[in-house]
Amino acid sequence: MRPRTARLAGLPDNVTVYEVGPRDGLQNEPAVIPLETKLQLIARLVGAGLKVVEVTSLVRPDVVPQLADAEELLTRLPPMPAVRYPVLVPNHRGLERALANGVREIAVFTSATESFAQRNLNSSRARSLKVAGEVAHRARQHGLPVRGYVSMCFGDPWEGDVEPTAVVSVATELLAMGCGEVSIGDTTGVATPGAVRALITRLLDAGAEPSTLAVHFHDTYGQALANTVEALRCGLSTVDASAGGLGGCPFAKSSSGNLATEDLVFLLDGLGVNTGVDLAALARTSLWLAGRLGRPSPSRAVQALAMGLERER
Amino acid sequence: MRPRTARLAGLPDNVTVYEVGPRDGLQNEPAVIPLETKLQLIARLVGAGLKVVEVTSLVRPDVVPQLADAEELLTRLPPMPAVRYPVLVPNHRGLERALANGVREIAVFTSATESFAQRNLNSSRARSLKVAGEVAHRARQHGLPVRGYVSMCFGDPWEGDVEPTAVVSVATELLAMGCGEVSIGDTTGVATPGAVRALITRLLDAGAEPSTLAVHFHDTYGQALANTVEALRCGLSTVDASAGGLGGCPFAKSSSGNLATEDLVFLLDGLGVNTGVDLAALARTSLWLAGRLGRPSPSRAVQALAMGLERER
Repeated sequence: MRPRTARLAGLPDNVTVYEVGPRDGLQNEPAVIPLETKLQLIARLVGAGLKVVEVTSLVRPDVVPQLADAEELLTRLPPMPAVRYPVLVPNHRGLERALANGVREIAVFTSATESFAQRNLNSSRARSLKVAGEVAHRARQHGLPVRGYVSMCFGDPWEGDVEPTAVVSVATELLAMGCGEVSIGDTTGVATPGAVRALITRLLDAGAEPSTLAVHFHDTYGQALANTVEALRCGLSTVDASAGGLGGCPFAKSSSGNLATEDLVFLLDGLGVNTGVDLAALARTSLWLAGRLGRPSPSRAVQALAMGLERER
Repeated sequence: MRPRTARLAGLPDNVTVYEVGPRDGLQNEPAVIPLETKLQLIARLVGAGLKVVEVTSLVRPDVVPQLADAEELLTRLPPMPAVRYPVLVPNHRGLERALANGVREIAVFTSATESFAQRNLNSSRARSLKVAGEVAHRARQHGLPVRGYVSMCFGDPWEGDVEPTAVVSVATELLAMGCGEVSIGDTTGVATPGAVRALITRLLDAGAEPSTLAVHFHDTYGQALANTVEALRCGLSTVDASAGGLGGCPFAKSSSGNLATEDLVFLLDGLGVNTGVDLAALARTSLWLAGRLGRPSPSRAVQALAMGLERER
């Protein structure tokens, strides 16, 4: 079925869906996905109308074997002038690999908390931010647009609640260091709409333009879509999502998946907000990939649409 | 982990969670649940702080064998003066059974669409509304509070989009016929927040007080919680939900479950809205029931909290 459509005052007319499935999703899969499957996934996502697809990360292949094929993937991407293929770059070595492989847009990342930086980024928060800034600066010198990810913007498994001040400080530094956009990540999925508004208000008060901010919600506790509506109400118009909720495994140890792109597009279709994405084509892609991964998509919309798509055959 | 807490302007201080799991959830289970399990479920829900638990439906036992134990269940409910145990009553015969078994609060139901009335209620829409009104009137004469459910308020599998006019007409008639509260049901889960605001605005414009309206969202396409926030923003303060998302089976033919009470309470805890519900105790209850049903809860919050509760043992 289609969503029940009605506009809501104060929302943008258009939203950019920043698709992270091939990178953030597949990076967290237990199995290594064959390169041909990844290429087919990216082609199908683009075919479904996605205009920004983060395709891989130039991390060390021995640390993240799921993305060890990054260079070959980059050389074989379908050339689509109207589509952006950002690549995650963790450090100077990653940037060199990106430049050597014709990458035209990168993303750097850091953490709002010291604990996450120490434990997951093997760095202090200050050092992680410094490296991200240096990489961003060099990328800008090569004419590449840069996005900055900030993890743990609402809660941290070790530190608990994260104060907006910490996020504002990191985000504004990233913007000052050349990032054209900063993605505010709720890595643990604990955000609720009031906290979203409080943080975004602080970021805007600190001088960030709404067009330079994106949100990256995890649906760990089912709050991602409600949080997204609040972010849009605050004037933002770029939302990260992962096709089929890729990266979050239902009933497995880690269910902390990204917001599913289908749930997001169902919402935006219902709100009359344009995304350019064809929901049925996207759901078919996620169903196809779920078959390859050998487990169902955790996306509610994919599950429900699957029944309708089944009947259409 | 706990939700990140911050108030949001315009929301109520308190929300009444109307728990429908034992009735709406178990009614849709393929297996018949033993009476002792149902009684334990209700006791645990009340123990977790729920103040309104719809416990069963007085339908024909041969039509809904899952609820054939309704009378025995009613006589064995834990007597809790501060807890409401409404019972669904489809017709005059159901009301007689309710009165004979000491029921103190009932709910009647009807449909906003002709197709659903014909196909699922075996009646015309007009006749279904007439019966609901007569039952409500008789119940009021016996001093019983009555709630009215309206199904298919946003979309209908046969008719597509449902016009607000149809819902407003049925809901205002139910209120006029003695219902103290009307629950607006998104039976197919196609509502999005703009449509929620549009419909509630129409209902309020037609004279309904916010305190006489409740919302009943299905999470079929993952929209239930975002829709709930919008309903609260419109001034409503009663929300239907089902512990563990009971009644919706993940990856099964029908995934159209109710909004999970845990996802709702996580949201409201985060928004600083009081419900009186202890989220951890509720999630433990849903995990216990999931074990009895032999399948995991579809609630995101239950799945995520399960990991934390596991560590606590």
